Amino acid sequence: MRRVLSTSLPTHVGRPVTIAGWLHRRRLLKSVAFLILRDAGGLAQVVVTDPELRAWLAELPEETVLQVTGEVVANPAAPAGVELVEPSVRLLGEPAVPPPFDLYRPALAATLPTQLDHAPVALRHPTRSAALRISAAAVAGFRATLDARDFVEVHTPKLVAGATESGANVFELDYFGRPAYLAQSPQFYKQLMVGVFERVYEVGPVFRAEPHDTARHLAQYTSLDVEFGFVEDHRDVMSMLREVLAGMLDSIAVRAGGALDTLGIDLPPVPAEIPSVHFTEALRIAGAAPDEPDLAPAHERTLGEWARAEHGCEFLFVTGYPMAKRPFYTHPARPGSPEFRPALAGAGEPAYSNGFDLLFRGVELVTGGQRLHRHGDYLAALAARNEPVEPVATYVAAFRHGMPPHGGFAIGLERFVARLTGAANIREVTAFPRDLHRLTP
Amino acid sequence: MRRVLSTSLPTHVGRPVTIAGWLHRRRLLKSVAFLILRDAGGLAQVVVTDPELRAWLAELPEETVLQVTGEVVANPAAPAGVELVEPSVRLLGEPAVPPPFDLYRPALAATLPTQLDHAPVALRHPTRSAALRISAAAVAGFRATLDARDFVEVHTPKLVAGATESGANVFELDYFGRPAYLAQSPQFYKQLMVGVFERVYEVGPVFRAEPHDTARHLAQYTSLDVEFGFVEDHRDVMSMLREVLAGMLDSIAVRAGGALDTLGIDLPPVPAEIPSVHFTEALRIAGAAPDEPDLAPAHERTLGEWARAEHGCEFLFVTGYPMAKRPFYTHPARPGSPEFRPALAGAGEPAYSNGFDLLFRGVELVTGGQRLHRHGDYLAALAARNEPVEPVATYVAAFRHGMPPHGGFAIGLERFVARLTGAANIREVTAFPRDLHRLTP
Repeated sequence: MRRVLSTSLPTHVGRPVTIAGWLHRRRLLKSVAFLILRDAGGLAQVVVTDPELRAWLAELPEETVLQVTGEVVANPAAPAGVELVEPSVRLLGEPAVPPPFDLYRPALAATLPTQLDHAPVALRHPTRSAALRISAAAVAGFRATLDARDFVEVHTPKLVAGATESGANVFELDYFGRPAYLAQSPQFYKQLMVGVFERVYEVGPVFRAEPHDTARHLAQYTSLDVEFGFVEDHRDVMSMLREVLAGMLDSIAVRAGGALDTLGIDLPPVPAEIPSVHFTEALRIAGAAPDEPDLAPAHERTLGEWARAEHGCEFLFVTGYPMAKRPFYTHPARPGSPEFRPALAGAGEPAYSNGFDLLFRGVELVTGGQRLHRHGDYLAALAARNEPVEPVATYVAAFRHGMPPHGGFAIGLERFVARLTGAANIREVTAFPRDLHRLTP
Repeated sequence: MRRVLSTSLPTHVGRPVTIAGWLHRRRLLKSVAFLILRDAGGLAQVVVTDPELRAWLAELPEETVLQVTGEVVANPAAPAGVELVEPSVRLLGEPAVPPPFDLYRPALAATLPTQLDHAPVALRHPTRSAALRISAAAVAGFRATLDARDFVEVHTPKLVAGATESGANVFELDYFGRPAYLAQSPQFYKQLMVGVFERVYEVGPVFRAEPHDTARHLAQYTSLDVEFGFVEDHRDVMSMLREVLAGMLDSIAVRAGGALDTLGIDLPPVPAEIPSVHFTEALRIAGAAPDEPDLAPAHERTLGEWARAEHGCEFLFVTGYPMAKRPFYTHPARPGSPEFRPALAGAGEPAYSNGFDLLFRGVELVTGGQRLHRHGDYLAALAARNEPVEPVATYVAAFRHGMPPHGGFAIGLERFVARLTGAANIREVTAFPRDLHRLTP
C-alpha cells in the first residue's frame, strides 16, 4: 500500500492507509497505548490495544523509524481529528538510539552547543526545522522576484587568486601548488556578469575567516547577491531591494505558514517605500559625534527603535555612507547625487558615497550601493587609497570594455532569518554552522 | 524617459523611446550610418543621418555603452522590423577598449584559451551567453520539479573536517590553525537532512582537486543534489530522476527558447520510462570482459549508441554497479533486489549494488542510488573495506538515531549543459572555469 503523509489522513477516514515516520512519542495507558508518529507533514496518532504490540512498542526507543498500516477513524480529541486504529507496525530500520534530549517537548531543553554537537537530531525538533523551512521559503521568494524581472542566475568561482575585499579574514589554500583564497563574496564576478546579462543574481556560500566569536558571524554563510546595470544611481538599487524583500516575505507567508505558526511569529510589513536617512542624520539620531566614520551596533539599535517609533517600520535605509568605510569600487556621492554633503573639515572630498545599508530591527542586514563603472575611475580610486592594482588587475581591466552604470546588494540569509525569527544566535537558524571553534558535524 | 528593451520596440512604433546598451556594430554607408545596439533583449538598429553624429560614431569603439533616444519606425528590412530614427546619443561611461575578438560575428573566432582569458567580454557573445541562460533555466526546472514534490532546499557546509569520498583529489586549507577540506559533495549532509525533512535538495559548488587536464573535469562545478527517504529501493530514485530531468528540459524549452535557437539545438525527449540495463548486460553490449569492474568512456559511448539504436533514446540507466567501485555508503543489491546477480568466481558477495549511473548521449551524467540506512550496516561496510570509522565518525554516528531507507543522486550542471549543447569542452559552458591551470579571471 502506497504511503501517505500524516497531513492527508483526514481525507482517508474510514479507509486503511499506510503511514511511515519517526516514533515521536509513546503514551502507555492502562488498557491502551498511543503511538505518535512524526513525518514530514507533522504528527499522527496511532491507537494500540493489542497487548503484544503494546509490549513491543513499550521497548522501542524514540526516533525509531516505523511503518504503520491501519484504518483511519475520526476522533475529535486526536491531532487533526483523526487517528489510526487496528495498526500493524513494522520497523523500517533498526531500533534507534534515543537522542540526548527529548524531541517531543515544545522547546529543546539542551543548550545551543549541545544542539550543535548533535545537529542531525536537534534539527528534527520543530522549532529548529521551522527556521530552515523559513530560510528555504525566503530564498524561493528571492529568486521568484528576480526571475520575474529578467534577472539571470549565475554561479561564480569560490576559489580566487586574490582577496575580494580588504584582504583580511580570508581562508587561504593550496591550489595545485599556488596560493588561492576562498571567495569572501561574488562581488567582482557579479559585476562582470552585468556586462553579459545586465541583471544577475547568485545564491551561494561565502567564506570569512572571522576571528571573533560572536552571535552574528559565521565562517561560511549563504549570500543572496544581486547586481544590475543601467541604473540611474543607488536609489534604483534600493527600490529593487524593497521589491526583493517584499517577495521574500510574501514567499515565507505562502510557503512556510506552518513554520511561522510553530515559532509564533508575525511577518513585518514592507512599506511601499522604506524610510531612509542620510548617514549624517543617522549619526545625529543615534546621538553619535558628527565625525564618526561608521555606525556602531548600539547606534544601529537606536536607529531601529527610531524607525519603529517615527515610521512604524522595522526597516530603515541608511544612505550616503562615508567613502572612507566603503570598498574601492563604491561610487562616490558627487554633487548632484541625493547623498552629496560637503565634507567635514579635514576630510577629503567626496566624503560620502552612493552606498547604503538596510537595517532590519536595528541590525545591519543588507549592504549595497552603486559601483564605479568607468575603468579610469577604478584606477583613480585605487590610487587615492594607495591600494595596488595588481591583486584586482583582471577585474579592473574588464571595465575597459564598456560597463553600464550599475549597482547591487547582498543579503546574508542566516542573519535575515535570525532577525526575523528573533533567534538570539545566528547558529540557531543554521543547519551546520562553521565558526572559530566548530568544523563538525 | 524610461529606458525600454530592444525586444519591446515593435510595440512602440510611431513613438519616441530611449534604449541603452552596448555598441555592437556600426555600418558606415555613404549617406547614412547604422548603429546596432545590443542589450539584454537582443539587437536594435539605429539610423544615423546627421553628419556630425555620424562622424562621432565612426570613432567610437565597439562595446562602448550608449543611451539612444529616437522615434521607432517600421522597416521590414531591420531586425524585428523596426528601427530608431532621428536619434540623440549619449555615452553612459567612457569609450570602450575593443575586445581582442569580434563579438558581432556569428561565431567567436578566438581559441578557447583566449576566450577564457577574456571571459568577461567573451561571455557577451550570444553563443557563450546562450549556454549560461540554458544553465539557469535548467536549474530553475530542477528546483520547480522538486518544490512541487515537497522537497526542501538546504545549504550545507563546504568546509569539512574529513574528505567526503575517497580522500583523494581534495583541497586542504588552514581553518583557524586546523586542517580542513573543501567538500567534494554534500553527500553526507544531504543524507543527514533526510532525517529532518525526508526530502531535500541543494544547488551548490563542489570542489575536486582534479589533477587531470581533460575536457570534462573542473576543479569547481555546480552540483544539483537530491536525497529523499522512505523509498522502496533505488528504482524510486530513478523515477524521481526521470521527473527531474523532464522538468529541467521543459524549463529550458520555456525559459531559454531564444538560447536554444541561437545554438540551433533541439531538446531530447525524456521517455515516460528511461531504458535501463544491468551493469553485467552493459558490459556485454559494450563488448567488455564480464569481470570488468567499471565502464570505460569508450564503453559508455557504445552504450549511448546502443540506446539510441535500440530504444531511440538519448538517456540510458546502467543499474547494479559493482560494489567494489562504489563508496561505502552504497546499498548492496541483496537477494530480492532487481539488481541482484550472483558474484563471478573470486568476487565477494554481494557483488552488485543498488547504485546506478545515468548516461546521456554516451557520457555519465548522473550518479545515484540507494544508500545504507542502518548504523550497523555502516560499521560493517567500513570494516569490510578496511576503511577507518574515525574520518566519518560524526556522519556514521547520526545513523544510530533512526534513518529511513533513502537514496538520491547528483547531476553535474556544467556537464549536463555541455552534453546538451554539444560543447566539446565543459569550459565552453562555464562562466569562469577553474582547473589545474586556471585560477583567473
